[in-house]
Amino acid sequence: MNPDQPIGVFDSGIGGLTVIHALRQLLPQEELVYLGDTARLPYGTKSHRTIERYTLQMGELLQRHQPKLIVIACNTASAHGLPALQAVSPCPVIGVIEPGAEAAVQHPGAIGIIGTLATVSSGAYEAAVLRHDPTRTIHSVACPLLVPLAEEGWFDDALTDAICRRYLEQLPPEVATVVLGCTHYPTLMISLERSRPGTRWIDSGQVTARAVDHLLRGSLGYRTAGSRGGLTVQLTDASTRLKEVGSRFLEEALGDIEVVEI
Amino acid sequence: MNPDQPIGVFDSGIGGLTVIHALRQLLPQEELVYLGDTARLPYGTKSHRTIERYTLQMGELLQRHQPKLIVIACNTASAHGLPALQAVSPCPVIGVIEPGAEAAVQHPGAIGIIGTLATVSSGAYEAAVLRHDPTRTIHSVACPLLVPLAEEGWFDDALTDAICRRYLEQLPPEVATVVLGCTHYPTLMISLERSRPGTRWIDSGQVTARAVDHLLRGSLGYRTAGSRGGLTVQLTDASTRLKEVGSRFLEEALGDIEVVEI
Repeated sequence: MNPDQPIGVFDSGIGGLTVIHALRQLLPQEELVYLGDTARLPYGTKSHRTIERYTLQMGELLQRHQPKLIVIACNTASAHGLPALQAVSPCPVIGVIEPGAEAAVQHPGAIGIIGTLATVSSGAYEAAVLRHDPTRTIHSVACPLLVPLAEEGWFDDALTDAICRRYLEQLPPEVATVVLGCTHYPTLMISLERSRPGTRWIDSGQVTARAVDHLLRGSLGYRTAGSRGGLTVQLTDASTRLKEVGSRFLEEALGDIEVVEI
Repeated sequence: MNPDQPIGVFDSGIGGLTVIHALRQLLPQEELVYLGDTARLPYGTKSHRTIERYTLQMGELLQRHQPKLIVIACNTASAHGLPALQAVSPCPVIGVIEPGAEAAVQHPGAIGIIGTLATVSSGAYEAAVLRHDPTRTIHSVACPLLVPLAEEGWFDDALTDAICRRYLEQLPPEVATVVLGCTHYPTLMISLERSRPGTRWIDSGQVTARAVDHLLRGSLGYRTAGSRGGLTVQLTDASTRLKEVGSRFLEEALGDIEVVEI
Protein backbone atom coordinates (compact mmCIF):
# COMPACT_ATOMS: atom_id res chain seq x y z
CA MET A 1 0.00 0.00 0.00
CA ASN A 2 1.38 3.40 -1.03
CA PRO A 3 1.31 5.91 1.90
CA ASP A 4 0.53 8.70 -0.58
CA GLN A 5 -2.83 7.14 -1.42
CA PRO A 6 -5.84 8.86 0.17
CA ILE A 7 -7.84 7.79 3.19
CA GLY A 8 -11.39 6.93 2.16
CA VAL A 9 -14.09 7.98 4.60
CA PHE A 10 -17.73 7.11 4.18
CA ASP A 11 -20.96 7.84 5.98
CA SER A 12 -24.66 7.38 5.33
CA GLY A 13 -24.90 11.14 4.86
CA ILE A 14 -23.04 14.19 6.05
CA GLY A 15 -22.65 13.48 9.78
CA GLY A 16 -19.30 11.83 9.01
CA LEU A 17 -17.95 15.27 8.12
CA THR A 18 -17.43 15.70 11.89
CA VAL A 19 -14.92 12.81 11.56
CA ILE A 20 -13.34 14.54 8.53
CA HIS A 21 -13.01 17.69 10.66
CA ALA A 22 -11.19 15.71 13.37
CA LEU A 23 -8.93 14.01 10.78
CA ARG A 24 -8.02 17.32 9.13
CA GLN A 25 -7.09 18.78 12.49
CA LEU A 26 -4.98 15.83 13.62
CA LEU A 27 -3.55 14.76 10.23
CA PRO A 28 -3.65 17.85 8.00
CA GLN A 29 -1.22 16.43 5.43
CA GLU A 30 -3.40 13.43 4.57
CA GLU A 31 -5.40 13.32 1.33
CA LEU A 32 -9.06 12.55 2.12
CA VAL A 33 -11.96 11.27 0.01
CA TYR A 34 -15.38 11.55 1.61
CA LEU A 35 -18.34 9.60 0.28
CA GLY A 36 -21.81 10.27 1.71
CA ASP A 37 -24.77 8.07 0.75
CA THR A 38 -27.21 10.97 0.80
CA ALA A 39 -29.53 9.27 -1.73
CA ARG A 40 -30.42 6.63 0.86
CA LEU A 41 -29.81 8.30 4.22
CA PRO A 42 -30.47 7.80 7.06
CA TYR A 43 -29.22 4.26 7.73
CA GLY A 44 -30.25 4.48 11.40
CA THR A 45 -33.85 3.38 10.86
CA LYS A 46 -33.06 0.52 8.46
CA SER A 47 -32.51 -3.23 8.84
CA HIS A 48 -29.23 -5.09 9.35
CA ARG A 49 -29.40 -6.68 5.92
CA THR A 50 -30.00 -3.41 4.08
CA ILE A 51 -27.32 -1.48 6.01
CA GLU A 52 -24.80 -4.25 5.34
CA ARG A 53 -25.63 -4.23 1.61
CA TYR A 54 -25.30 -0.43 1.41
CA THR A 55 -21.98 -0.52 3.31
CA LEU A 56 -20.53 -3.01 0.80
CA GLN A 57 -21.64 -0.82 -2.12
CA MET A 58 -20.05 2.28 -0.56
CA GLY A 59 -16.82 0.37 0.02
CA GLU A 60 -16.79 -0.62 -3.64
CA LEU A 61 -17.27 3.00 -4.75
CA LEU A 62 -14.38 4.11 -2.53
CA GLN A 63 -12.09 1.53 -4.13
CA ARG A 64 -12.04 3.67 -7.28
CA HIS A 65 -9.71 5.98 -5.32
CA GLN A 66 -7.43 3.08 -4.24
CA PRO A 67 -7.44 4.20 -0.61
CA LYS A 68 -4.75 3.02 1.80
CA LEU A 69 -7.41 2.83 4.52
CA ILE A 70 -11.20 3.06 4.73
CA VAL A 71 -12.88 4.67 7.72
CA ILE A 72 -16.58 3.95 8.22
CA ALA A 73 -17.45 7.32 9.78
CA CYS A 74 -20.97 6.23 10.66
CA ASN A 75 -21.92 4.38 13.79
CA THR A 76 -24.87 2.59 12.17
CA ALA A 77 -22.78 1.31 9.23
CA SER A 78 -19.96 0.37 11.62
CA ALA A 79 -22.42 -1.58 13.78
CA HIS A 80 -23.94 -3.54 10.90
CA GLY A 81 -21.51 -3.48 7.96
CA LEU A 82 -17.92 -3.47 9.27
CA PRO A 83 -17.20 -7.24 9.33
CA ALA A 84 -18.69 -7.74 5.85
CA LEU A 85 -16.64 -4.90 4.36
CA GLN A 86 -13.46 -6.00 6.14
CA ALA A 87 -13.94 -9.47 4.62
CA VAL A 88 -13.84 -8.20 1.02
CA SER A 89 -11.82 -4.96 1.11
CA PRO A 90 -8.29 -4.96 -0.35
CA CYS A 91 -7.27 -2.30 2.22
CA PRO A 92 -7.80 -2.15 6.00
CA VAL A 93 -11.17 -0.88 7.23
CA ILE A 94 -11.94 0.62 10.62
CA GLY A 95 -15.21 1.83 12.11
CA VAL A 96 -16.03 4.35 14.82
CA ILE A 97 -17.40 1.94 17.42
CA GLU A 98 -14.21 0.18 18.49
CA PRO A 99 -12.32 3.47 19.10
CA GLY A 100 -15.33 4.89 20.98
CA ALA A 101 -15.64 1.82 23.20
CA GLU A 102 -11.89 1.76 23.87
CA ALA A 103 -11.94 5.42 24.91
CA ALA A 104 -14.95 4.90 27.17
CA VAL A 105 -13.39 2.07 29.19
CA GLN A 106 -10.46 4.33 30.11
CA HIS A 107 -12.85 5.92 32.62
CA PRO A 108 -14.32 4.11 35.62
CA GLY A 109 -17.96 3.22 36.19
CA ALA A 110 -21.06 2.56 34.14
CA ILE A 111 -21.03 3.64 30.47
CA GLY A 112 -23.90 5.20 28.55
CA ILE A 113 -24.37 4.90 24.79
CA ILE A 114 -26.65 7.17 22.77
CA GLY A 115 -27.24 6.47 19.09
CA THR A 116 -29.72 5.68 16.33
CA LEU A 117 -32.27 2.89 16.61
CA ALA A 118 -30.16 0.61 14.39
CA THR A 119 -26.93 1.27 16.29
CA VAL A 120 -28.51 0.69 19.69
CA SER A 121 -30.42 -2.42 18.62
CA SER A 122 -27.24 -3.94 17.13
CA GLY A 123 -25.61 -4.23 20.57
CA ALA A 124 -22.27 -3.43 18.87
CA TYR A 125 -21.12 -0.97 21.56
CA GLU A 126 -21.97 -3.39 24.37
CA ALA A 127 -19.95 -6.11 22.62
CA ALA A 128 -16.99 -3.76 22.03
CA VAL A 129 -16.99 -2.45 25.62
CA LEU A 130 -17.23 -5.94 27.09
CA ARG A 131 -14.32 -7.15 24.94
CA HIS A 132 -12.20 -4.52 26.69
CA ASP A 133 -13.71 -4.95 30.15
CA PRO A 134 -16.20 -7.75 30.82
CA THR A 135 -17.18 -6.21 34.18
CA ARG A 136 -18.71 -3.02 32.81
CA THR A 137 -22.36 -2.05 33.00
CA ILE A 138 -23.68 -0.40 29.82
CA HIS A 139 -26.92 1.54 29.34
CA SER A 140 -28.02 2.37 25.79
CA VAL A 141 -30.67 4.86 24.66
CA ALA A 142 -31.90 5.21 21.08
CA CYS A 143 -32.46 8.90 20.23
CA PRO A 144 -34.21 8.95 16.82
CA LEU A 145 -34.91 12.69 16.86
CA LEU A 146 -31.34 13.89 17.37
CA VAL A 147 -30.21 13.40 13.76
CA PRO A 148 -33.11 15.40 12.26
CA LEU A 149 -32.65 18.02 15.01
CA ALA A 150 -28.96 18.42 14.13
CA GLU A 151 -29.87 18.73 10.45
CA GLU A 152 -32.60 21.25 11.25
CA GLY A 153 -29.91 23.32 12.99
CA TRP A 154 -31.76 24.13 16.20
CA PHE A 155 -28.57 24.58 18.19
CA ASP A 156 -28.40 26.43 21.53
CA ASP A 157 -32.17 26.10 21.71
CA ALA A 158 -34.54 25.38 24.62
CA LEU A 159 -36.56 22.90 22.56
CA THR A 160 -33.44 20.92 21.69
CA ASP A 161 -32.47 20.96 25.37
CA ALA A 162 -35.88 19.53 26.27
CA ILE A 163 -35.63 16.74 23.69
CA CYS A 164 -32.08 15.83 24.79
CA ARG A 165 -33.26 15.82 28.42
CA ARG A 166 -36.08 13.41 27.62
CA TYR A 167 -33.65 10.92 26.08
CA LEU A 168 -30.85 11.38 28.63
CA GLU A 169 -33.21 10.99 31.60
CA GLN A 170 -33.41 7.33 30.59
CA LEU A 171 -29.78 6.87 31.67
CA PRO A 172 -29.39 6.02 35.37
CA PRO A 173 -27.60 8.62 37.51
CA GLU A 174 -24.52 6.41 38.05
CA VAL A 175 -23.56 6.72 34.36
CA ALA A 176 -20.63 9.16 34.34
CA THR A 177 -19.37 8.60 30.77
CA VAL A 178 -21.58 8.73 27.68
CA VAL A 179 -20.45 7.82 24.16
CA LEU A 180 -21.89 9.99 21.37
CA GLY A 181 -22.68 6.97 19.23
CA CYS A 182 -23.64 8.94 16.14
CA THR A 183 -21.48 11.33 14.15
CA HIS A 184 -24.24 13.96 14.11
CA TYR A 185 -24.30 14.35 17.87
CA PRO A 186 -21.17 16.50 18.45
CA THR A 187 -23.05 19.38 16.79
CA LEU A 188 -25.64 19.17 19.63
CA MET A 189 -22.99 19.38 22.37
CA ILE A 190 -24.37 22.58 23.97
CA SER A 191 -27.78 21.00 24.54
CA LEU A 192 -26.40 17.64 25.60
CA GLU A 193 -24.22 19.31 28.25
CA ARG A 194 -27.04 21.47 29.52
CA SER A 195 -29.33 18.44 29.72
CA ARG A 196 -26.93 16.28 31.71
CA PRO A 197 -24.30 18.46 33.42
CA GLY A 198 -21.18 16.76 34.76
CA THR A 199 -21.21 13.96 32.17
CA ARG A 200 -17.98 12.97 30.41
CA TRP A 201 -18.78 12.78 26.67
CA ILE A 202 -16.82 10.61 24.24
CA ASP A 203 -16.86 12.00 20.69
CA SER A 204 -16.38 8.97 18.45
CA GLY A 205 -15.06 11.23 15.64
CA GLN A 206 -12.16 12.50 17.70
CA VAL A 207 -11.16 9.11 19.05
CA THR A 208 -11.42 7.60 15.57
CA ALA A 209 -9.02 10.24 14.22
CA ARG A 210 -6.55 9.12 16.90
CA ALA A 211 -7.06 5.47 15.88
CA VAL A 212 -6.29 6.45 12.26
CA ASP A 213 -3.12 8.23 13.39
CA HIS A 214 -2.10 5.07 15.23
CA LEU A 215 -2.56 2.92 12.11
CA LEU A 216 -0.60 5.35 9.91
CA ARG A 217 2.23 5.47 12.43
CA GLY A 218 2.32 1.68 12.12
CA SER A 219 2.42 -0.16 8.81
CA LEU A 220 0.26 2.14 6.63
CA GLY A 221 2.53 5.20 6.70
CA TYR A 222 1.88 8.94 6.59
CA ARG A 223 1.58 10.78 3.29
CA THR A 224 5.09 11.86 2.27
CA ALA A 225 4.21 15.31 0.87
CA GLY A 226 4.42 17.92 3.61
CA SER A 227 1.71 20.13 2.09
CA ARG A 228 -1.85 20.21 3.37
CA GLY A 229 -3.84 17.32 1.90
CA GLY A 230 -6.91 17.86 -0.26
CA LEU A 231 -10.49 16.86 0.44
CA THR A 232 -12.72 15.36 -2.26
CA VAL A 233 -16.42 15.20 -1.35
CA GLN A 234 -18.68 12.79 -3.24
CA LEU A 235 -22.37 12.32 -2.47
CA THR A 236 -24.94 9.97 -3.97
CA ASP A 237 -27.47 12.84 -4.00
CA ALA A 238 -27.02 16.58 -3.64
CA SER A 239 -30.06 18.41 -2.31
CA THR A 240 -30.05 22.17 -1.96
CA ARG A 241 -29.61 22.23 1.81
CA LEU A 242 -26.68 19.84 1.99
CA LYS A 243 -23.95 22.37 1.37
CA GLU A 244 -25.17 24.60 4.17
CA VAL A 245 -25.62 21.79 6.70
CA GLY A 246 -22.42 20.07 5.58
CA SER A 247 -20.31 23.17 6.19
CA ARG A 248 -21.65 23.31 9.73
CA PHE A 249 -20.53 19.73 10.38
CA LEU A 250 -17.15 20.20 8.71
CA GLU A 251 -16.60 23.54 10.50
CA GLU A 252 -15.26 25.00 7.25
CA ALA A 253 -16.78 25.75 3.84
CA LEU A 254 -17.59 22.68 1.74
CA GLY A 255 -15.96 22.97 -1.68
CA ASP A 256 -17.28 21.40 -4.86
CA ILE A 257 -19.43 18.31 -4.42
CA GLU A 258 -19.37 15.52 -6.99
CA VAL A 259 -22.55 13.48 -7.34
CA VAL A 260 -22.03 9.73 -7.85
CA GLU A 261 -25.30 8.06 -8.77
CA ILE A 262 -25.99 4.61 -7.34
CA MET B 1 -58.60 -2.16 -17.69
CA ASN B 2 -60.32 -4.80 -15.55
CA PRO B 3 -62.18 -3.23 -12.59
CA ASP B 4 -61.29 -6.28 -10.47
CA GLN B 5 -57.58 -5.44 -10.67
CA PRO B 6 -56.12 -3.86 -7.50
CA ILE B 7 -55.35 -0.23 -6.81
CA GLY B 8 -51.60 0.23 -6.36
CA VAL B 9 -50.57 2.72 -3.69
CA PHE B 10 -47.01 3.73 -3.06
CA ASP B 11 -45.17 5.93 -0.61
CA SER B 12 -41.57 6.61 0.34
CA GLY B 13 -42.24 4.78 3.60
CA ILE B 14 -45.21 4.06 5.79
CA GLY B 15 -46.90 7.49 6.00
CA GLY B 16 -48.99 6.51 2.98
CA LEU B 17 -50.78 3.98 5.19
CA THR B 18 -52.91 6.94 6.33
CA VAL B 19 -54.12 7.08 2.70
CA ILE B 20 -54.72 3.30 2.75
CA HIS B 21 -56.78 3.82 5.92
CA ALA B 22 -58.91 6.44 4.16
CA LEU B 23 -59.30 4.22 1.06
CA ARG B 24 -60.35 1.21 3.13
CA GLN B 25 -62.97 3.28 4.90
CA LEU B 26 -64.43 4.84 1.76
CA LEU B 27 -63.95 1.91 -0.66
CA PRO B 28 -63.83 -1.25 1.50
CA GLN B 29 -64.46 -3.62 -1.42
CA GLU B 30 -61.35 -2.55 -3.37
CA GLU B 31 -58.24 -4.76 -3.49
CA LEU B 32 -55.18 -2.71 -2.44
CA VAL B 33 -51.45 -3.21 -2.92
CA TYR B 34 -49.24 -0.94 -0.83
CA LEU B 35 -45.57 -0.46 -1.68
CA GLY B 36 -43.35 1.50 0.73
CA ASP B 37 -39.77 2.40 -0.22
CA THR B 38 -38.50 1.98 3.33
CA ALA B 39 -34.98 1.10 2.14
CA ARG B 40 -34.51 4.67 0.87
CA LEU B 41 -36.92 6.76 2.96
CA PRO B 42 -37.37 9.61 3.55
CA TYR B 43 -37.72 11.25 0.13
CA GLY B 44 -38.43 14.66 1.72
CA THR B 45 -34.78 15.66 2.10
CA LYS B 46 -33.65 14.48 -1.34
CA SER B 47 -33.22 16.14 -4.75
CA HIS B 48 -35.74 16.40 -7.58
CA ARG B 49 -33.71 14.09 -9.81
CA THR B 50 -33.36 11.36 -7.20
CA ILE B 51 -37.03 11.50 -6.11
CA GLU B 52 -38.15 11.29 -9.74
CA ARG B 53 -35.91 8.28 -10.37
CA TYR B 54 -37.18 6.50 -7.24
CA THR B 55 -40.81 7.22 -8.19
CA LEU B 56 -40.32 5.63 -11.62
CA GLN B 57 -38.77 2.52 -10.02
CA MET B 58 -41.65 2.20 -7.56
CA GLY B 59 -44.17 2.54 -10.41
CA GLU B 60 -42.39 -0.27 -12.24
CA LEU B 61 -42.54 -2.55 -9.19
CA LEU B 62 -46.27 -1.89 -8.83
CA GLN B 63 -46.87 -2.90 -12.47
CA ARG B 64 -46.20 -6.52 -11.44
CA HIS B 65 -49.69 -6.39 -9.88
CA GLN B 66 -51.29 -4.94 -13.05
CA PRO B 67 -53.09 -2.21 -11.11
CA LYS B 68 -56.07 -0.43 -12.62
CA LEU B 69 -54.85 2.79 -10.97
CA ILE B 70 -51.73 3.96 -9.15
CA VAL B 71 -51.97 6.41 -6.25
CA ILE B 72 -48.78 8.19 -5.21
CA ALA B 73 -49.64 8.46 -1.51
CA CYS B 74 -46.64 10.65 -0.79
CA ASN B 75 -46.59 14.41 -1.19
CA THR B 76 -42.86 14.54 -1.97
CA ALA B 77 -43.08 11.89 -4.70
CA SER B 78 -46.25 13.55 -6.06
CA ALA B 79 -44.47 16.90 -6.17
CA HIS B 80 -41.41 15.60 -8.02
CA GLY B 81 -42.30 12.33 -9.76
CA LEU B 82 -45.95 12.45 -10.87
CA PRO B 83 -45.53 13.79 -14.44
CA ALA B 84 -42.65 11.38 -15.17
CA LEU B 85 -44.61 8.36 -13.93
CA GLN B 86 -47.79 9.44 -15.75
CA ALA B 87 -45.77 9.64 -18.97
CA VAL B 88 -44.71 5.98 -18.85
CA SER B 89 -47.41 4.18 -16.83
CA PRO B 90 -49.87 1.90 -18.68
CA CYS B 91 -52.57 2.78 -16.09
CA PRO B 92 -53.72 6.16 -14.76
CA VAL B 93 -51.66 7.70 -11.94
CA ILE B 94 -52.84 10.28 -9.41
CA GLY B 95 -50.98 12.03 -6.62
CA VAL B 96 -52.10 13.62 -3.36
CA ILE B 97 -51.33 17.24 -4.23
CA GLU B 98 -54.01 17.96 -6.80
CA PRO B 99 -56.84 16.64 -4.54
CA GLY B 100 -55.43 18.58 -1.57
CA ALA B 101 -55.21 21.82 -3.53
CA GLU B 102 -58.70 21.36 -4.97
CA ALA B 103 -60.13 20.82 -1.48
CA ALA B 104 -58.32 23.86 -0.09
CA VAL B 105 -59.70 26.30 -2.68
CA GLN B 106 -63.27 25.36 -1.67
CA HIS B 107 -62.68 27.60 1.36
CA PRO B 108 -62.13 31.36 1.16
CA GLY B 109 -58.98 33.25 2.07
CA ALA B 110 -55.25 32.62 2.22
CA ILE B 111 -54.06 28.98 2.18
CA GLY B 112 -51.23 27.51 4.22
CA ILE B 113 -49.18 24.48 3.17
CA ILE B 114 -47.02 22.47 5.56
CA GLY B 115 -44.78 19.72 4.22
CA THR B 116 -41.28 18.32 3.83
CA LEU B 117 -38.39 20.41 2.52
CA ALA B 118 -38.64 18.78 -0.91
CA THR B 119 -42.42 19.25 -1.17
CA VAL B 120 -42.29 22.90 -0.13
CA SER B 121 -39.32 23.74 -2.34
CA SER B 122 -41.02 22.15 -5.36
CA GLY B 123 -43.77 24.79 -5.37
CA ALA B 124 -46.18 22.05 -6.51
CA TYR B 125 -48.99 23.06 -4.14
CA GLU B 126 -48.74 26.72 -5.16
CA ALA B 127 -48.99 25.71 -8.82
CA ALA B 128 -51.97 23.42 -8.16
CA VAL B 129 -53.84 26.01 -6.06
CA LEU B 130 -53.23 28.76 -8.63
CA ARG B 131 -54.51 26.54 -11.45
CA HIS B 132 -57.83 26.41 -9.56
CA ASP B 133 -57.84 30.03 -8.40
CA PRO B 134 -55.17 32.45 -9.66
CA THR B 135 -56.13 35.04 -7.02
CA ARG B 136 -55.16 33.00 -3.96
CA THR B 137 -52.35 33.83 -1.57
CA ILE B 138 -50.36 30.77 -0.42
CA HIS B 139 -47.92 30.52 2.49
CA SER B 140 -45.72 27.41 2.74
CA VAL B 141 -43.68 26.20 5.70
CA ALA B 142 -41.23 23.28 5.57
CA CYS B 143 -41.44 21.22 8.78
CA PRO B 144 -38.54 18.74 8.67
CA LEU B 145 -39.00 17.47 12.23
CA LEU B 146 -42.63 16.43 11.93
CA VAL B 147 -41.99 13.15 10.08
CA PRO B 148 -39.43 11.88 12.63
CA LEU B 149 -41.71 13.10 15.45
CA ALA B 150 -44.65 11.12 14.04
CA GLU B 151 -42.42 8.04 13.71
CA GLU B 152 -41.12 8.52 17.26
CA GLY B 153 -44.76 8.46 18.39
CA TRP B 154 -44.72 11.47 20.74
CA PHE B 155 -48.43 12.10 20.32
CA ASP B 156 -50.47 14.21 22.75
CA ASP B 157 -47.20 15.58 24.05
CA ALA B 158 -46.15 19.08 25.19
CA LEU B 159 -42.84 18.85 23.31
CA THR B 160 -44.62 17.99 20.05
CA ASP B 161 -47.00 20.90 20.68
CA ALA B 162 -44.01 23.25 21.06
CA ILE B 163 -42.36 22.03 17.85
CA CYS B 164 -45.62 22.34 15.89
CA ARG B 165 -46.11 25.82 17.32
CA ARG B 166 -42.65 26.91 16.17
CA TYR B 167 -43.41 25.87 12.60
CA LEU B 168 -47.01 27.10 12.50
CA GLU B 169 -46.09 30.53 13.92
CA GLN B 170 -44.46 31.15 10.54
CA LEU B 171 -47.92 31.24 8.93
CA PRO B 172 -49.55 34.70 8.98
CA PRO B 173 -52.73 35.00 11.08
CA GLU B 174 -54.98 35.47 8.02
CA VAL B 175 -54.37 31.87 6.94
CA ALA B 176 -57.61 30.03 7.84
CA THR B 177 -57.04 26.78 5.90
CA VAL B 178 -53.88 24.68 6.11
CA VAL B 179 -53.13 21.65 3.92
CA LEU B 180 -51.35 18.76 5.68
CA GLY B 181 -48.93 18.33 2.81
CA CYS B 182 -47.38 15.11 4.12
CA THR B 183 -49.11 11.81 4.78
CA HIS B 184 -47.46 11.52 8.21
CA TYR B 185 -49.07 14.67 9.56
CA PRO B 186 -52.62 13.43 10.29
CA THR B 187 -51.13 11.38 13.14
CA LEU B 188 -50.01 14.66 14.77
CA MET B 189 -53.50 16.21 14.58
CA ILE B 190 -53.88 16.73 18.35
CA SER B 191 -50.71 18.82 18.55
CA LEU B 192 -51.40 20.70 15.32
CA GLU B 193 -54.85 21.72 16.57
CA ARG B 194 -53.54 22.78 19.97
CA SER B 195 -50.78 24.81 18.30
CA ARG B 196 -53.08 26.73 15.97
CA PRO B 197 -56.67 26.58 17.22
CA GLY B 198 -59.43 27.53 14.82
CA THR B 199 -57.54 26.40 11.71
CA ARG B 200 -59.33 24.34 9.02
CA TRP B 201 -57.03 21.38 8.23
CA ILE B 202 -57.11 19.57 4.88
CA ASP B 203 -56.01 15.93 5.18
CA SER B 204 -54.63 15.04 1.76
CA GLY B 205 -55.24 11.33 2.43
CA GLN B 206 -58.96 11.79 2.90
CA VAL B 207 -59.43 14.03 -0.12
CA THR B 208 -57.33 11.66 -2.24
CA ALA B 209 -59.58 8.75 -1.29
CA ARG B 210 -62.52 10.81 -2.58
CA ALA B 211 -60.61 11.53 -5.81
CA VAL B 212 -60.06 7.76 -6.25
CA ASP B 213 -63.78 7.14 -5.70
CA HIS B 214 -64.52 9.71 -8.38
CA LEU B 215 -62.21 7.96 -10.89
CA LEU B 216 -63.69 4.53 -10.16
CA ARG B 217 -67.22 5.86 -10.57
CA GLY B 218 -66.09 7.07 -14.00
CA SER B 219 -64.29 4.88 -16.51
CA LEU B 220 -62.17 2.69 -14.19
CA GLY B 221 -65.02 0.88 -12.44
CA TYR B 222 -65.48 -0.51 -8.94
CA ARG B 223 -64.38 -4.04 -8.06
CA THR B 224 -67.30 -6.36 -8.87
CA ALA B 225 -66.93 -8.71 -5.87
CA GLY B 226 -69.00 -7.41 -2.97
CA SER B 227 -66.65 -8.83 -0.31
CA ARG B 228 -64.12 -6.73 1.58
CA GLY B 229 -60.98 -6.30 -0.49
CA GLY B 230 -57.58 -7.51 0.68
CA LEU B 231 -54.49 -5.48 1.47
CA THR B 232 -51.01 -6.60 0.37
CA VAL B 233 -48.13 -4.69 1.99
CA GLN B 234 -44.72 -4.71 0.32
CA LEU B 235 -41.73 -2.81 1.64
CA THR B 236 -38.22 -2.44 0.25
CA ASP B 237 -36.83 -2.89 3.79
CA ALA B 238 -38.44 -4.19 6.97
CA SER B 239 -36.87 -2.89 10.17
CA THR B 240 -38.09 -4.09 13.53
CA ARG B 241 -40.06 -0.96 14.40
CA LEU B 242 -41.99 -0.69 11.14
CA LYS B 243 -44.81 -3.01 12.07
CA GLU B 244 -45.54 -1.11 15.26
CA VAL B 245 -45.40 2.33 13.66
CA GLY B 246 -47.21 1.13 10.53
CA SER B 247 -50.17 -0.17 12.53
CA ARG B 248 -50.53 3.25 14.14
CA PHE B 249 -50.74 4.91 10.72
CA LEU B 250 -53.10 2.30 9.29
CA GLU B 251 -55.27 2.37 12.46
CA GLU B 252 -55.50 -1.44 12.34
CA ALA B 253 -52.97 -4.27 12.71
CA LEU B 254 -50.54 -4.64 9.82
CA GLY B 255 -50.62 -8.22 8.50
CA ASP B 256 -47.70 -9.97 6.84
CA ILE B 257 -45.15 -7.75 5.14
CA GLU B 258 -43.33 -8.89 2.01
CA VAL B 259 -39.87 -7.46 1.44
CA VAL B 260 -39.05 -6.54 -2.17
CA GLU B 261 -35.36 -5.74 -2.54
CA ILE B 262 -34.39 -2.93 -4.89
